[in-house]
Amino acid sequence: MTAIRHNVTVKVEPEKVFNAITTQQGLERWWAKQTTARPEVGFVNVFTFGKFRNEMKVSKLIPNKKVEWECINSIEEWIGTTISFDLEEKDGRTILRFSHSGWRAVTDTFAGCNYDWALFMKSLKSLCETGAGTPS
Amino acid sequence: MTAIRHNVTVKVEPEKVFNAITTQQGLERWWAKQTTARPEVGFVNVFTFGKFRNEMKVSKLIPNKKVEWECINSIEEWIGTTISFDLEEKDGRTILRFSHSGWRAVTDTFAGCNYDWALFMKSLKSLCETGAGTPS
Repeated sequence: MTAIRHNVTVKVEPEKVFNAITTQQGLERWWAKQTTARPEVGFVNVFTFGKFRNEMKVSKLIPNKKVEWECINSIEEWIGTTISFDLEEKDGRTILRFSHSGWRAVTDTFAGCNYDWALFMKSLKSLCETGAGTPS
Repeated sequence: MTAIRHNVTVKVEPEKVFNAITTQQGLERWWAKQTTARPEVGFVNVFTFGKFRNEMKVSKLIPNKKVEWECINSIEEWIGTTISFDLEEKDGRTILRFSHSGWRAVTDTFAGCNYDWALFMKSLKSLCETGAGTPS
């Protein structure tokens, strides 16, 4: 089992990052333009990129601290994996620790997704700091 | 031991990517503005970011296919690690497989560098495709 991990400092308070990673209005502005999401444990968020449909069940929500999703439908390599966002406040900024864990092997898809996740973390950072992200 | 891996498709032929990752004129336009480098096995490339000085010994060069560096001086966590770029031509484009291996632990520095390397891969891609990178 292996994991993708990205740490990013976002120059806003955790509450703003938490909203961007839990609400539909947030998620559709930095990740998938076509998003259905609710900040509610047990709800299945749906993120669609063309033919690529991701269903992510919200498995953990600790306000302004942590968000966790279980991937229940997606490409084969993603099914059963876990995505989490941990937020730590430091001097009015947020240290965001992103993880996509439970990968069964380090494949070309893993390395491609690792790159893509970093660009989406940059999009999330940009949305929080400037109001504009670069969703797909 | 663990590794950072990013796969990126660059819409140019491998020769252009190879030049960007081996020559001083290439490297200073997507990674460190302050670079001393030579496309020569055994040469120690030096990349300086403010107080952060990296010495990378060129350990492998296969024209248009592979570049490998051994990190001989840097921050403690980087010393002894290996950085490699593998290039594969496909339909006139280049599949770039980047790896930074030999990390002894998955730390906050690892996760921060993983994010940073992705942005530098994007900078390299941009330099090759458009002529402009975003070096530090």
